[in-house]
This record gives sequence, C-alpha cells and structure tokens, in this order.
Amino acid sequence: MATMTESIPTTVQVHLGDRSYAIQVRHDVASSVWADVLPKALRGQQALIVCDANTQSWAEAWYDIIAPFAPRQKMIVLPAGEAEKHLGTVARLYDDLADLPADRHTYVIAIGGGVLGDTAGFAAATYARGLPWIMVPTTLLAMVDSSVGGKVGVNHPKGKNLIGAFHQPAAVWIATSALTSLPDREFRSGLAEVVKYGVIMDAHLFEMLEAESLNLHNPRHPRWVEIIARCCRLKADVVEQDERETKGLRLILNYGHTFAHAFESVAGYGTWLHGEAVALGMLCASRLSERRGLVVPAVAERQRELLVKFGLPVQADARWNVDDVLLAMRTDKKARGGRLRFIVPRRLGEVEVVDDVQDTEVAAVLREVGCHG
Amino acid sequence: MATMTESIPTTVQVHLGDRSYAIQVRHDVASSVWADVLPKALRGQQALIVCDANTQSWAEAWYDIIAPFAPRQKMIVLPAGEAEKHLGTVARLYDDLADLPADRHTYVIAIGGGVLGDTAGFAAATYARGLPWIMVPTTLLAMVDSSVGGKVGVNHPKGKNLIGAFHQPAAVWIATSALTSLPDREFRSGLAEVVKYGVIMDAHLFEMLEAESLNLHNPRHPRWVEIIARCCRLKADVVEQDERETKGLRLILNYGHTFAHAFESVAGYGTWLHGEAVALGMLCASRLSERRGLVVPAVAERQRELLVKFGLPVQADARWNVDDVLLAMRTDKKARGGRLRFIVPRRLGEVEVVDDVQDTEVAAVLREVGCHG
Repeated sequence: MATMTESIPTTVQVHLGDRSYAIQVRHDVASSVWADVLPKALRGQQALIVCDANTQSWAEAWYDIIAPFAPRQKMIVLPAGEAEKHLGTVARLYDDLADLPADRHTYVIAIGGGVLGDTAGFAAATYARGLPWIMVPTTLLAMVDSSVGGKVGVNHPKGKNLIGAFHQPAAVWIATSALTSLPDREFRSGLAEVVKYGVIMDAHLFEMLEAESLNLHNPRHPRWVEIIARCCRLKADVVEQDERETKGLRLILNYGHTFAHAFESVAGYGTWLHGEAVALGMLCASRLSERRGLVVPAVAERQRELLVKFGLPVQADARWNVDDVLLAMRTDKKARGGRLRFIVPRRLGEVEVVDDVQDTEVAAVLREVGCHG
Repeated sequence: MATMTESIPTTVQVHLGDRSYAIQVRHDVASSVWADVLPKALRGQQALIVCDANTQSWAEAWYDIIAPFAPRQKMIVLPAGEAEKHLGTVARLYDDLADLPADRHTYVIAIGGGVLGDTAGFAAATYARGLPWIMVPTTLLAMVDSSVGGKVGVNHPKGKNLIGAFHQPAAVWIATSALTSLPDREFRSGLAEVVKYGVIMDAHLFEMLEAESLNLHNPRHPRWVEIIARCCRLKADVVEQDERETKGLRLILNYGHTFAHAFESVAGYGTWLHGEAVALGMLCASRLSERRGLVVPAVAERQRELLVKFGLPVQADARWNVDDVLLAMRTDKKARGGRLRFIVPRRLGEVEVVDDVQDTEVAAVLREVGCHG
C-alpha cells in the first residue's frame, strides 16, 4: 500500500465513462479543500440536503459550507433507522423536491449512513428521470462501501433493497471526523468491511491493519483518511469492470456475506449489526477454504486475531442451530435462483468463488464457530 | 420513403450500445413471426404480464402466444386511465413482482397504451435495480411515440411524469390489429403524432399521408405496418443521438407541444386529448414560423388540410383567453427554468428551435386560430 502524507488531499477517481465521479476524502468538514471542490461540484445549482436525526449536526455544518455556492438550499431531516428505508420515505422526498421546486439540475445531497444514502439516492434516481446527487457518508461502513457503486434503493416487505436502481453520484465527500460521533459498536462494525478489502484484494492493507490495530480504535487517527481512500479505490477497481453486476466480478465483494446474511436472519434482523455478521462470516468462509485445502490455516487465524483486536465477534451465538442457518442460506439463495456460492480466500489478498459446497462442509464450519446441532 | 411489401417483416433496430433493442411491427398478434421472436426475447424466463381493463383481451391473446416460451407467467389487470398513473399503482406492481417471486431475469410485459407502459415500465426500472421489460403498445400514440426512447414514469400531484427514469425495453412488439379496438377519437389523436414526424423529419412521409389520407382512417389498412415502423425509425434516429435528452436534439420531437401543453391545461386536463392539442399546436407553430418569415404559408396550409382530413382540430375553443394560454405556457416554462421555446418548421421535413419569441407574436397566432382577448 502506497504511503501518503496526511497533507496530500486524497481523491479517488471512479472511472465509469460519462458517469465518472470523484471521491474526496479529508479529515474535516471545515477543511479548506471544500472551498475548491464545492463550486465545481454544485455548478451554481440549488440543493436539497437530506439527513436524519443522527446526522443533523453534520448536515448543519455542511449547510453552512455549501451556502455560498448554492443559490438556494433546503434541509430535510428524516427519521433515522432501517425501518424508515421504504417507499413511503421516498414519496415524502418526492414531495419535498416538488415543493422546492426542483428542476433537472437540482442536487440531492445525502448526509448520513447507508440507509439514508440509499433512500435519498433512490429519490434522486427517480425524480425528473434522474437528479444529480452527492453522497456525504458519515459512517465507516457507508464511507468504504456505499461510496462506490451507485446502488440505491429501499426495502420492500418481502426483501431488502428489492426496490432500487443504479444511479452513480456526481460526487462523494467524506470528512472522516464524522466517525467520532458514531456509537463505538457501529464504528467497529464498519471495521469488518475494511478487513474484508484486505483479505479479498490487498494483503498490504491487511498487514497495515494488523500493525496499526491499536491506533485504529481511534476514529480520530490520521491514518483513517488514507485507509478509507484505499478501500474506495479497491472497490472502484472492481466496480469499474462490472458496473451493473452482470459479469460476476462484483461477487468477490460478498466475501463473508453468504454466511453473514444467514446469521443476521437467524439472530433476528437488527440483533447483530451487519459488520458483526460479516466478521464471523469471513472467518467461516476462511475455515471453509481451509477444509477444502485451498488456503493455509494461518490466513483464517490471522483474520480471527485481527477481528478480535477490533472487538468483532468470531464466535456464533450458541443458541443458533446449524440447520436453521443452512435453511436461511437456502432461502437467501432461492431468491437468486442459483446454488449456494461462497467467496473463499486462496491467500491474503486473493479470493475465488466456489459453488460446489456440500451442506455437510458448511455444517462442520458452523459447528467449529459454535453453532449447535 | 422506401416502399415495402407487406409480406416483409418490419423490424426497427434501436441502436443504444448495450441497451439496443428491436421493435417488431406486424399486423397480427397471431402472426407466425412471433414464434421466432418470442423464444429469443424471453430466453426461457418467467414473465409478469401487465395490462389494463381496456387491453385485457389483447393481453389474453398474447398470454396464449407467450405461454410456450415462458416457464411461468402471471397476468395483472390494472384499472385504466391517466388517474391511475401514480406511485400507488407502482407499489402494487412491486407487490405483484415480490409475490411471483420475480428474480433479476423476470420479464415485465406491458400491454397497453402510454399510461400503462409508463407505469409498468417504471416498476420494471426500479425493481431489483432493473428488470428487463417488453413493451406491447396497443394505441397508435404509444406505437409511434412510447416505443422508442425508454422514458418511463408516473405522475406526482405537482407534475406529470415527475417521478420517472430512463429504462430501455428489451424489445417492443407491435401488432397493428390492436388499433381496431381503439375508440375512433383516440385513434385520430394518435394520427397527430404521425403527422408530426412528417413535418419535423420526413417530407416523403408527409406526402404519403396526404396521398393515403382517406385509406388511413381505416386502422386495418395494410399501410399501417409500414407507417408505424417508419415513425419508430425516425424517432430512433433522434434518440440514438441524444438518449438522455442532454444535447437538445430530442427537442424537435416537441414540435407543437409548447402550445399543446397550454391548450390541455386551459381546456382542463382530459377535455382535449393530447394528440388533439398537438394538432392545433403544430398549426400554431407553423403560423408562428410563417409570421417570422421562416417558412412559406403553404406549409401551414397543407398541415391544416391534412389535419382536417384526419378529423383533428385546427381551431381553438373560442372560450379560451389569449392571456390564459400565455400564462399556462409560462407556468410550464417556469418548471424548466428557461425561456419559451418553440419548434418551428423551415420547410416540410425540417424544423428549428426558436427561443426569442415575443408574447405579442404568440398572442397574434392564438387569435388567428380562434382564441379571444
């Protein structure tokens, strides 16, 4: 991993033809850099700023910084939480846009975590056949995951993100200082996805995380600018080759997720945070790889140790039954109409897809991490 | 205009990179051609057929023809009419898709006019980040207008089509025999858009319409296959250069529409059919061109005569006040944030955009066609 001095502005270019955009990563909302970035990004157009109760104070800081560059802006505060990620909230944003009134050049600026960004981004995607939008992620998970890829949408009672579109943002602005206001558990949950990029694509990143693990508990640590930019670059490398998830390349980003989705479901949605489930899921995927002789045991072990250092779970809830977890995987699979697929490591920084896994192998791994039955 | 014998299948290729598709124009739903087209188009996937009360019998005919090629299909009958074109109807289609359950490869097949196609197409655009969809237009207007361009969406209380997206269909299947079940007034309304293509892009088409005007009252006339394919080709020529309406080229398709939108509004929505308002609007745009010395008077006169032959209005409602019409134009304009723009003919088959028109000029034209004040 290239070392960068903290004084160098960190910008990640996402190359997607006429949908290309830049991700700016800085420490502060008050960084002088924004004075250069904002006028070019907003091009003198009006803006609808969307935040939620958790991110309102950040949104107010951005509001002041944006004010000189937008002739007119309005701020909308949505209720916070996954339960608000539905079509009704989108309809409410359509009303706000119509009231403004928005024209085809009005920017939607989404300031918040994944739920807020997905919802406001979907409203932008579908108002006036697509408004430009700017994502300002305030959680670690949103910074390293939602920032790249243009997936927007809301939940349907029958499935998460069933209603959605691909709509690339016009820009992504990240101020890592927002991490300081995250609840500790949510911050740690985001760390799981950072570890994921190391395992699937970047052994140097993984080693750096190991070396700095104590420092990285601190969201104020200056390294965060570099790490987040690095994760965005890694995801961009994948998305640039498979923007609409038609070529299977984006699959590797699902490392740990076949297990994780089942864990979230069996635990009862909301009991385990997504990153927590991903942490245990990655460990399971590594153990699976080990069983098949695809990887040396040290890889799973180093992951386990790093996840423990980051305060992430590496043990299942003993009340989870192996068959229940397997059933949850099959249900998830049924919606895709294919076989169970797992992303497994070959070595640090390299994974492959396997789809010929027997239930008995999965069951053995689940028992290893503490499921019963 | 190239002459085609009726036995030659008429296929229009719309070239939009990886969003390219073919429009098949035939006389009959029962045409043997569909047996070739359908399996390739549906690729063995399941289908949700969406129609409305007006098109249910056509949808049933298509259902039988599709049955051998889709492992599983379901038909949804929506209530008919512009009042049903709202987010609630889209939400209902999301439920139907989730119940199926649809996967990412499930086809939405929309069988109906513009309202039905726009609504079902928008549901397809936004379910699972975009399902493939097939448009089966059953009105003349939808055949020559909605078939090309990928505009989908629904109305918001504050504006028509405010909620929408661009989502190109995977295929368009046109059986002109559907025209026989259209109410006469609606069929004639569609004729206005056919005349439009002649004036803006294709003098030969215009001349053919003049020569065949008596025959074309009959929706069974074999010429219709050729004419509809020709209109689709003309619109495709424009859309291929300006898919997302960012370059201004698609503007010419709005010939007559600045006037028409104002007429529809002043008359009270639904009083004048869209094509009726476009007919009078085109005449007004020609008169405006004439006043400015941009075109010889014969062009407006030939249009007037052709529109009269097609039973379309060339006279305003005498109760319409000039100032009310102007105000309606300004309101329409305000939403776009620009000056009043008119597409005006230079000669048959060629138009240009003018945006320096004075209210007094517009008022004079409105009085000429019978508005008072």
